[in-house]
Amino acid sequence: MRETPFRCVKVKVRLILEYDGSFFSGWQSQANAHTVQSELGRSLEVYLHSLAKREGIALETLPKLTASGRTDAGVHALGQVVSFEWPAELPFDRSRCCAALNGISSRGLGVLAAEECSDTFDARFSAHTKRYFYRILLRSHGGQGLYHGRVWHLDRRLDVAAMAAAAKHFRGTHDFSAFRAADCTAKTTVRTLEQSQLARVDRNELRYFVQGTGFLKQMVRIIVGTLVEVGLGRLSAAEIPGVIASLERSSAGETAPACGLYLEWVRYTEPAA
Amino acid sequence: MRETPFRCVKVKVRLILEYDGSFFSGWQSQANAHTVQSELGRSLEVYLHSLAKREGIALETLPKLTASGRTDAGVHALGQVVSFEWPAELPFDRSRCCAALNGISSRGLGVLAAEECSDTFDARFSAHTKRYFYRILLRSHGGQGLYHGRVWHLDRRLDVAAMAAAAKHFRGTHDFSAFRAADCTAKTTVRTLEQSQLARVDRNELRYFVQGTGFLKQMVRIIVGTLVEVGLGRLSAAEIPGVIASLERSSAGETAPACGLYLEWVRYTEPAA
Repeated sequence: MRETPFRCVKVKVRLILEYDGSFFSGWQSQANAHTVQSELGRSLEVYLHSLAKREGIALETLPKLTASGRTDAGVHALGQVVSFEWPAELPFDRSRCCAALNGISSRGLGVLAAEECSDTFDARFSAHTKRYFYRILLRSHGGQGLYHGRVWHLDRRLDVAAMAAAAKHFRGTHDFSAFRAADCTAKTTVRTLEQSQLARVDRNELRYFVQGTGFLKQMVRIIVGTLVEVGLGRLSAAEIPGVIASLERSSAGETAPACGLYLEWVRYTEPAA
Repeated sequence: MRETPFRCVKVKVRLILEYDGSFFSGWQSQANAHTVQSELGRSLEVYLHSLAKREGIALETLPKLTASGRTDAGVHALGQVVSFEWPAELPFDRSRCCAALNGISSRGLGVLAAEECSDTFDARFSAHTKRYFYRILLRSHGGQGLYHGRVWHLDRRLDVAAMAAAAKHFRGTHDFSAFRAADCTAKTTVRTLEQSQLARVDRNELRYFVQGTGFLKQMVRIIVGTLVEVGLGRLSAAEIPGVIASLERSSAGETAPACGLYLEWVRYTEPAA
């Protein structure tokens, strides 16, 4: 009897993840490294095998996990989105799946939601807008207490008004060639930022909020490093358009540490289900 | 020649500490445990010995560290205060002392400030008012992500208005016998709370703020456990005065986990210098 592939119903699942980046060597699986993708993959494997055993079937392949984008080692996420194809022969239950993955995963990784989504949904290619924020802790001493690995601790005085003015220049559509890592492989370097704003959110904390349709590798961290140059008086806010126009990485500031960066959320063009 | 002890100038130092309680087995030194007191004592020992070596003198004794109060294993501090007698034969420099202690101490402990204070100052006995807060994270899944060890994660629906009403009943002067650990050794059980307030500080975070002249062992955690009983509908806000008046530990709720509790600050009757 011939197989009838058109009758096979694909089940696609999307997960919302929160993670503490200090526990992981980034998103992407690598040999000999504890990454979010490998940890989540391992938990999913354990859970799917337990389901398969209960159903009395053998799992042939394991799903391939796709995230909205990679995050570097040390970068945190409050709402990373991951999609994968659920084995059609196994039952899917939102709440049980979520509870099981949380129960199996190691410290630092939390699964906030698991839900069925349209079979055309792809966490990476369907992503429409992303928002990140970056935390800077300003105080003289004690960066290794409660905030260790969660902020960029700076013990220098910064001109916050100048930094806020500089941040506004990144809004809109620009060629961000000056703001990408040397090994960034993106084909196009033009990106649009809908929001680029620096604010003092607490007596000794600055936060940079940035929202856009896409980001180049290390783009947010290089923008933050450049804003700190402005804060230190080494660059003026008015010089930012020139730095952007230079298209030269060397005109921008250094790359801010990964530990201050948080992927806040990802928005999609198509609804979940 | 006779010694003239009255000419000896005592130098007392006070430190402001921040710590992530998940790294420590509480404040108090204990055999075979990594505590805040032992970690800070070790760092201070290394620093004082390096100073003594430079001055060409031998240190006879090491200072005894006094905190404003003990904190249990897992409890965090944003402004714990510690005092000790500085060896009079060694120079004291605020900024160097602070930087050295931070450089030597292990992850999780930050020294925010080091300053000379009056020689009658005692971090414990001069303490006038303390403020704590307690964080409750309300969401269905994922307590082990970014908030692991920093909040009490509850996946139940809570009646926040009832909890807020219940919190107010703790204000004022009461005998808090029903709200102390079985092994609490305090001689008097009457305490005064100037503030006792529960508020939603974020979409899925409740925070309980409490301020008073003194606290019994695990008092804040038992109050929070009792407020959660109210939130779950097992107790009404109007029943709180009766629970307090019972003086019975068994009338109150369970002890909330240590990891949600933060010692925010301590105020003193006498100024620092």
